Amino acid sequence: MHTSPFLGELIGTAVLLLLGNGVVANVVLKQTKGENAGWIVITAGWAFAVTIGVFVSKAFGSTDAHLNPAVTIAFAFATNDFSHVVPYITAQLIGSFLGATLVWLNYLPHWAATEDPDSKLACFATGPAIRNSGANFTSETLATLILILGLAGISSKNLGELAIGVGPYLVGILVWSIGLSLGGTTGYAINPARDFGPRLAYTLLPIPNKGSSDWPYAWVPIAGPIVGAIVGGLIIRTFTL
Amino acid sequence: MHTSPFLGELIGTAVLLLLGNGVVANVVLKQTKGENAGWIVITAGWAFAVTIGVFVSKAFGSTDAHLNPAVTIAFAFATNDFSHVVPYITAQLIGSFLGATLVWLNYLPHWAATEDPDSKLACFATGPAIRNSGANFTSETLATLILILGLAGISSKNLGELAIGVGPYLVGILVWSIGLSLGGTTGYAINPARDFGPRLAYTLLPIPNKGSSDWPYAWVPIAGPIVGAIVGGLIIRTFTL
Amino acid sequence: MHTSPFLGELIGTAVLLLLGNGVVANVVLKQTKGENAGWIVITAGWAFAVTIGVFVSKAFGSTDAHLNPAVTIAFAFATNDFSHVVPYITAQLIGSFLGATLVWLNYLPHWAATEDPDSKLACFATGPAIRNSGANFTSETLATLILILGLAGISSKNLGELAIGVGPYLVGILVWSIGLSLGGTTGYAINPARDFGPRLAYTLLPIPNKGSSDWPYAWVPIAGPIVGAIVGGLIIRTFTL
Amino acid sequence: MHTSPFLGELIGTAVLLLLGNGVVANVVLKQTKGENAGWIVITAGWAFAVTIGVFVSKAFGSTDAHLNPAVTIAFAFATNDFSHVVPYITAQLIGSFLGATLVWLNYLPHWAATEDPDSKLACFATGPAIRNSGANFTSETLATLILILGLAGISSKNLGELAIGVGPYLVGILVWSIGLSLGGTTGYAINPARDFGPRLAYTLLPIPNKGSSDWPYAWVPIAGPIVGAIVGGLIIRTFTL
Repeated sequence: MHTSPFLGELIGTAVLLLLGNGVVANVVLKQTKGENAGWIVITAGWAFAVTIGVFVSKAFGSTDAHLNPAVTIAFAFATNDFSHVVPYITAQLIGSFLGATLVWLNYLPHWAATEDPDSKLACFATGPAIRNSGANFTSETLATLILILGLAGISSKNLGELAIGVGPYLVGILVWSIGLSLGGTTGYAINPARDFGPRLAYTLLPIPNKGSSDWPYAWVPIAGPIVGAIVGGLIIRTFTL
Repeated sequence: MHTSPFLGELIGTAVLLLLGNGVVANVVLKQTKGENAGWIVITAGWAFAVTIGVFVSKAFGSTDAHLNPAVTIAFAFATNDFSHVVPYITAQLIGSFLGATLVWLNYLPHWAATEDPDSKLACFATGPAIRNSGANFTSETLATLILILGLAGISSKNLGELAIGVGPYLVGILVWSIGLSLGGTTGYAINPARDFGPRLAYTLLPIPNKGSSDWPYAWVPIAGPIVGAIVGGLIIRTFTL
Repeated sequence: MHTSPFLGELIGTAVLLLLGNGVVANVVLKQTKGENAGWIVITAGWAFAVTIGVFVSKAFGSTDAHLNPAVTIAFAFATNDFSHVVPYITAQLIGSFLGATLVWLNYLPHWAATEDPDSKLACFATGPAIRNSGANFTSETLATLILILGLAGISSKNLGELAIGVGPYLVGILVWSIGLSLGGTTGYAINPARDFGPRLAYTLLPIPNKGSSDWPYAWVPIAGPIVGAIVGGLIIRTFTL
Repeated sequence: MHTSPFLGELIGTAVLLLLGNGVVANVVLKQTKGENAGWIVITAGWAFAVTIGVFVSKAFGSTDAHLNPAVTIAFAFATNDFSHVVPYITAQLIGSFLGATLVWLNYLPHWAATEDPDSKLACFATGPAIRNSGANFTSETLATLILILGLAGISSKNLGELAIGVGPYLVGILVWSIGLSLGGTTGYAINPARDFGPRLAYTLLPIPNKGSSDWPYAWVPIAGPIVGAIVGGLIIRTFTL
């Protein structure tokens, strides 16, 4: 069999969601080893999930390793080349659903051990700290814009070639930064696939005492990142960052 | 449009303040996801804020990426070239005000949810753990001196070219170190723009139940870093580090 | 005397277990400086244990520095070269027993100070958060598969040569990620030697108020990682990652 | 004026102690911003203290940047060249006393705010979790041996040149690892100068409500690291690591 960008995006996004939502499950579910381990654990877990997801994605054939429709859209607008948008986002959505399903599998005995349905939903989809559509949308837009500008900075030609080998690590640090600093409001989806695929998985998977999937909120972590991505992409293009 | 050192300093400093004061807001404000997450979260957040701010600053055209009047002043004294001082500091002050405003925007619903006015001020400006002008000034001077010497070390020619690509990461580690070890007294402004711009933003922005902006303390995080920077710059020049 | 791959695997695995189980002892035993320091400390400790173990292993002559029978097995299946399997695993098992014994020595006064026998066993062998053979086996298999794919990604030729010098650090980040995100269920053995050697040491060493060694569970952290390794190795080979 | 290895060792060790004991002061003293921030903060602070100390030391002229008599002794035994031992250790002792004095200065208002004399001593010298001369000596010896072997691994020629540029960062990770995993017993001096210089400073400085300097324990963090260093140096030499 052959590696390919499609396969790389799919498997990389699956790894991203497995490790990313895995750390949420570890902290939020009951009777785990990391129960209540706090925000430093959640944000470190998501940071390294990105780093490892990118490494694995590259190994399976994706030189871009976006793992995120917002990143794909941003670079499409930045380069005026939209040819990758549909295949990459398709792969990312399949991968995010697959990764969420693997989180469910990994923590299988802990779903029944956890009573609160909101805690279980949190292991799949994001939710706002204070529900306010406008403010939540703004947070997701702003955090995604920082993600795109940060990626432009890390991969900037001005920095020479030396950062490339540790690039996936630096991208993880970028996401750690966003989580620590901007994630306090909406849980920093900053990635439509990261929220939609797992939310769908939550709806479909057999989980004991399941609660609402909160679909009315689902547009925020899709629309906010897309708007942030378009703005970021146009900035990169305008300034030729 | 064109990138430029001025634009790079401005946007980089805005990103620095957004991510830096963003983590304070996440830990200090009420009903956030990172509420009470502790000193490791605050110091990691500021560290990575520096790293990402430098990356973004370089992408927008600043090869220096100082993001800090103290750094600009130190290297002016070190090189005896003061031509950048006024434009860089102007850009840094505008950027720091802008970044603080973005923190306000990102955490919009949380200002009303937080009663204590001191907590809200802490998301903008620094304040002393024990108020003592002389000691607070000394702390800021000493911490800034370490910042300057650390920067000299990280960018030293003795180390070869290999650290350059990950330079912004190492600068983040330097600031993490200063925060962990010396920040316990004054909250390590070590950057006049980091304190002045956001303090002005706090004074001007519409924030519910706002308290004092504590302007009588504002000279400490300006004068201390400037003195530390001049001492550091002269040391670099004297020893040609 | 001469360095050799056998010596490198043996000493590297001893360092891995000393530093890895050392952090568990620090957090779990009574009257230590790190008592109850939490999951971030345990997972960081294991991450850096891997990094330092790999560096030391390479210094003593192991260019591979697997330190883990699962890794040895995975790369044997990936390359169809099984010549290293027996000598490497022999060295790893001896090293893991030696490392566990050094943990016992380092924390010597603390065994008597700690009453709970389960806490003492936890400083040697892994145990499940919720005992469920099938689910525990699945967790170990899945986490080890991610380890193998992550290693393939980090060492991938697509990434160029630049990551090699910091490779041991990135492998530590990979293990940190797995611990944070997937380790909540079984404590992420992901390494048969990491569990078997120390469990044997626990059984044999003179430890005050020793409890059960829980040998009935011992097959899970052996079989799960081996299955995950074989699957991972065959994936690497099939896709020529 | 000129940089020199002597000056580099002196200033680098001063920075090491300022940042290293600074983080202890931040966590242990009262009314600081980092009060009770825990073991992750202390060990991260010491790790980055090493990294920044090495960078600064190199900038001031030390290509070795040992900052630690144990490291100087180990490499003297490893290379059979003892010419640096006396000057380096002299510089390290002066630097460690200077660094401890700067910690006292930085946290000046907090000494009176802290009642417990043991907490104040802990900001200068190490002390055992459980007092047991033999076991404490063993811990310091073992932890220092790991330090020396880890340094050999990080600087090993087998790894190529690529790790050199980020070498000071990796040395910090090594010390973080030792702190997390082995430091739970004696607080990991692993450096005679780190303990002796600050203990002397504690004895001499004007500190309110000062308690005992615990000189009877002082031989342990001197003798243990020296023995560990000699053993490590001879291992490096024997195996030509």
